[in-house]
Amino acid sequence: MPTVTFLPANTTVEVPAGTLISEAAIRAGIEDLHLPCGGKGTCGQCLVQVVQGDADPLGHTRLDEALAGGGLVMACQTKVRDDLTVRMRQTHDAAMRVVGDTHFLVSQDFLPDRDNLSPMFGTETVTVTPPSIEEHYSDWQRLVRELTRERGDVPVRTHLSVLRKLADAVRARDGLVTVLLQEDDGGLKILDVQAGHMPMLGVGLAIDIGTTTIAVQLVSLHDGRVLAIRTAYNAQMRRGADIISRIDYARTPERLAELRDLVLETLNEMVADMLSHAGVPSDGVHTVFIAANTTMVHLLLGLPPRHIRETPYVPTVNTVPTLTAADIGLTINPQAIVACAPGVGSYVGGDITAGLLCTEMLTNHDDVFLFLDIGTNGEIVVGNADWLVTCACSAGPAFEGSGIKCGMRATEGAIEYLEISEDAQAVRYDVIGEGKPAGICGSGLICLLGELLLRGVVDQSGRFNTDLHSDRLVQLESTRGFVLEWGAHTQDGTDLVITEADIENLMRTKAAIYAACALILANVGLEWSSIARVYIAGGFGRYIQVEDAVLIGLLPDLPYATFTYIGNSALTGAYIALLSSERRRDLAALAARMTYIDLSSDPRYMDSYLGALFLPHTDMAQFPSVEARMRSGSRR
Amino acid sequence: MPTVTFLPANTTVEVPAGTLISEAAIRAGIEDLHLPCGGKGTCGQCLVQVVQGDADPLGHTRLDEALAGGGLVMACQTKVRDDLTVRMRQTHDAAMRVVGDTHFLVSQDFLPDRDNLSPMFGTETVTVTPPSIEEHYSDWQRLVRELTRERGDVPVRTHLSVLRKLADAVRARDGLVTVLLQEDDGGLKILDVQAGHMPMLGVGLAIDIGTTTIAVQLVSLHDGRVLAIRTAYNAQMRRGADIISRIDYARTPERLAELRDLVLETLNEMVADMLSHAGVPSDGVHTVFIAANTTMVHLLLGLPPRHIRETPYVPTVNTVPTLTAADIGLTINPQAIVACAPGVGSYVGGDITAGLLCTEMLTNHDDVFLFLDIGTNGEIVVGNADWLVTCACSAGPAFEGSGIKCGMRATEGAIEYLEISEDAQAVRYDVIGEGKPAGICGSGLICLLGELLLRGVVDQSGRFNTDLHSDRLVQLESTRGFVLEWGAHTQDGTDLVITEADIENLMRTKAAIYAACALILANVGLEWSSIARVYIAGGFGRYIQVEDAVLIGLLPDLPYATFTYIGNSALTGAYIALLSSERRRDLAALAARMTYIDLSSDPRYMDSYLGALFLPHTDMAQFPSVEARMRSGSRR
Repeated sequence: MPTVTFLPANTTVEVPAGTLISEAAIRAGIEDLHLPCGGKGTCGQCLVQVVQGDADPLGHTRLDEALAGGGLVMACQTKVRDDLTVRMRQTHDAAMRVVGDTHFLVSQDFLPDRDNLSPMFGTETVTVTPPSIEEHYSDWQRLVRELTRERGDVPVRTHLSVLRKLADAVRARDGLVTVLLQEDDGGLKILDVQAGHMPMLGVGLAIDIGTTTIAVQLVSLHDGRVLAIRTAYNAQMRRGADIISRIDYARTPERLAELRDLVLETLNEMVADMLSHAGVPSDGVHTVFIAANTTMVHLLLGLPPRHIRETPYVPTVNTVPTLTAADIGLTINPQAIVACAPGVGSYVGGDITAGLLCTEMLTNHDDVFLFLDIGTNGEIVVGNADWLVTCACSAGPAFEGSGIKCGMRATEGAIEYLEISEDAQAVRYDVIGEGKPAGICGSGLICLLGELLLRGVVDQSGRFNTDLHSDRLVQLESTRGFVLEWGAHTQDGTDLVITEADIENLMRTKAAIYAACALILANVGLEWSSIARVYIAGGFGRYIQVEDAVLIGLLPDLPYATFTYIGNSALTGAYIALLSSERRRDLAALAARMTYIDLSSDPRYMDSYLGALFLPHTDMAQFPSVEARMRSGSRR
Repeated sequence: MPTVTFLPANTTVEVPAGTLISEAAIRAGIEDLHLPCGGKGTCGQCLVQVVQGDADPLGHTRLDEALAGGGLVMACQTKVRDDLTVRMRQTHDAAMRVVGDTHFLVSQDFLPDRDNLSPMFGTETVTVTPPSIEEHYSDWQRLVRELTRERGDVPVRTHLSVLRKLADAVRARDGLVTVLLQEDDGGLKILDVQAGHMPMLGVGLAIDIGTTTIAVQLVSLHDGRVLAIRTAYNAQMRRGADIISRIDYARTPERLAELRDLVLETLNEMVADMLSHAGVPSDGVHTVFIAANTTMVHLLLGLPPRHIRETPYVPTVNTVPTLTAADIGLTINPQAIVACAPGVGSYVGGDITAGLLCTEMLTNHDDVFLFLDIGTNGEIVVGNADWLVTCACSAGPAFEGSGIKCGMRATEGAIEYLEISEDAQAVRYDVIGEGKPAGICGSGLICLLGELLLRGVVDQSGRFNTDLHSDRLVQLESTRGFVLEWGAHTQDGTDLVITEADIENLMRTKAAIYAACALILANVGLEWSSIARVYIAGGFGRYIQVEDAVLIGLLPDLPYATFTYIGNSALTGAYIALLSSERRRDLAALAARMTYIDLSSDPRYMDSYLGALFLPHTDMAQFPSVEARMRSGSRR
């Protein structure tokens, strides 16, 4: 059967010849496929680029003719003939996108078996023996007896609201009742009781609380279906863009309470919207799983975060005891169980441990893997089912466009891809939204840095080549720059220029990440070649073209197939943990066995960092493919 | 050393000759001793009656002379010379009395050792290792590690409010912290954390919720001292005087909520008053132990009580899961633990199991005991540390003065004691408050019934002797009666008359209780003579003179020393359970091993009842001492 490879996720799937590309994408779990017209070939929203191999169009429409030049086809109107590589079109501002149903970027192997879900509570239908004069056991005793019959003498707790319904429930249907049951600290907690056989489990929430964005899935606990998904900016952004400024802001109890209110405001609005969309009453939400970095957990719970940024950087909690929605302030069923993914330390939080549920790192004992979550901070985990080592590095926000003269987020008007002509006189670029450019986003910057190097505009130390004759190389007040587009063609009429200071900034960021990866490997005595797979997680990772990232020395020079982009693995991990007791146990065990390495106290880190402060690296032996590409001037 | 015996409790104590009677009473734990003047001999509130033996007055005051005739002495002004029997004066309306400190009627052996208390939570002072870069364990992890070091890997829970204080607490005094710790379902729950060494445990509440009255003790958990005690009418009285009328009233959710609000209103007012009196903040109350009958528990928790009075009489709960004050609605520390004494069934509740903590029945394997709580319902327990059998009987409210023409509660104006002259022409009586009589209370009724029998006014079937010539024997409209006092000398100017119908009513009540006791013994194949001790509990039991009760066949004909009055054993049991983990374990085990016998379904009950519907009984062999007393006409 033909194999179809989808870029940039590098996900492959085998399908019979004649399968529609859209079908193949769905089977591969590709997140970016949209079929608003239902696959009728009328909307053109499912366009993909055929990179390699041939495909058979179903027929010829006007749209087909218009697209043919760019190698673009409609996934829903094109069949697989033989092995095929297609690139999904990047969807923009994904953080703000509302998705009706979700495709996970993660292999099905890691997702819970939909026929065998084990959320934090289960339903159990039991027949309580009728009350009798002979026995005189209370309703509660008889219910507990049925529930513990097979579990042994474990403690059983409940809430008064359940006891208040119990007498009627056990008498309504000859003792047949369904209970909502939480396994908790070796005991059981009964969350609800209903007369009769009530197989419906209700819904749960998988929540990823990021410093910038919050993503929430409303999940059917019955079949694992995602009923709604929302992403929104964390309202705490109004009080500080990054973790450090939030921690500083929260230094009084009043401000700590304010930040807590802000994140709850965002969460509760999102949840209310999802519930109303899905037609689920708020009381029907019985369980929540949260993945968040350590600071976000502290701010959500109202715990003072000060010690996270003060030496020795020890937070109040890494593993949060199980709480209720009422404790936290979520406006769902007040008795709903709220669990948080455990963190390892102040700078490796529950977002990372949850993310590992999307990898082979908890199950594979034979190979070694690297997990890389790139954002303002980079978090790195190396290891497998036997051992795990983790570290964090402060990468800075350069790849998010911050601190770069013409940098911007990946929204409308951002250059996301570009090519520089061999003579460095012409620049061809793609703009998100296809209008005039307003700036350049992270993926564009990585692409740009590679092109500048390949075309000899900058040397390996990131300095402009003053011998180069190009009109685009200009002298600014205190630095030099390279013009990406002249003011006549930009949104605000000013030239789009990348400066030497910008390039230094970008190099510092990529050097910090690469040096951290290299040092953590050195710490465990491994070479890059020992790594069977590099998992790239996080919203930013999505837009990185692996080839470009290797070219500038952000990612190591490994075969491209080694890299797998797993999307918002914190959210996916929360989804997995919401539905699988086995993976929750994995997670609980995980945090305890991860070894945290503090790079800032390792004297070798500075050496590693300085070595990486070069394009791609001072030690070119680490980047053999890049050496070849620099010679040939070819990007791939 | 001389032995002093205090009646009616029949408590004895050995003291050196020359000890003040008041001192001896305090050592014996006598509840009824009051020394408002501080023992100066000026107020006369500590008067006792010397029944047997001689005592030495300290000096002669005018009061002494006035008292000498009645055998009365002031306990604080009279020394023990040799063996002595004194009768404590009955204090009236004890339910409404406010006592500054408490003497328990229970042997010290049953009270928790004040130097070794184990309330539902403890404090533990630990030193948490300082946070360090090497370790990176969170504050919570390091605290849990210290707490579980000796307990093994038990689950530890807490509330968010504790986590919020944790970072500061573990850093303030080099890691020295004191935690309030609850042992709960095999795990630990941390209720509070403070920096430094804080040995104070705060206070707890022991609560007895009766159908009529509620009694609460505010108890220092540090040394077991009772800081305040309050007794008040249960505000639910407004909605029904007895259990059945409350259950009927609570048939809609709104009315159930109303009854719940009423009992909470009473409780919260009492507690607020006690806290303000003792100068304790409401947040300082961390634990509560409640003893209450099954209906009162249901109404407090808002559980529908309907099934308690509908066959097969099975309640929602007997053993209430541990709750918090916030769950229940008590306005103390919202996280305070609230535990309830377990019940056995609808008619043998936590008031009875708690009461057993005041007896040898949980510790003695050799003898057999009988526990008797007489009220509108009588509850009976027979057994010892190896086995326990219990039953309940509906005695009716006759001994509370209800359903008796001239009956009244034991308050001002009630005849509490009387004697009838041999010719049945004169009646001498004692009135509570010493004014004109308004009616006759329970102890007076028992006394009266015995006198009527001894003087031949009634025969053994309770019918008036029509051959008797007494002006007091009168014909009423539809029945006959015996005049206790003529209208000229009563409060409202009408004659105080006991009728044949009243006597029947009283006999039904006493027969129900005796028959139940006899049947439960027969059920376990024992004779009365096998009973080593009869414990009499409950507010009513306090006023019963054992001699009178035996005379009419309410209590069995055993040596008087067999009977021990243990006061409000539900409240004392709650106090004990509040302070002793061992006794809480006893209590938990207790309810499970008590066998409930449903008398109403036992065909022999009617025989037993009919046999007891006689004065004292149809089978006089069961009452040999009464036979002798009837012959001699002597009450004792």
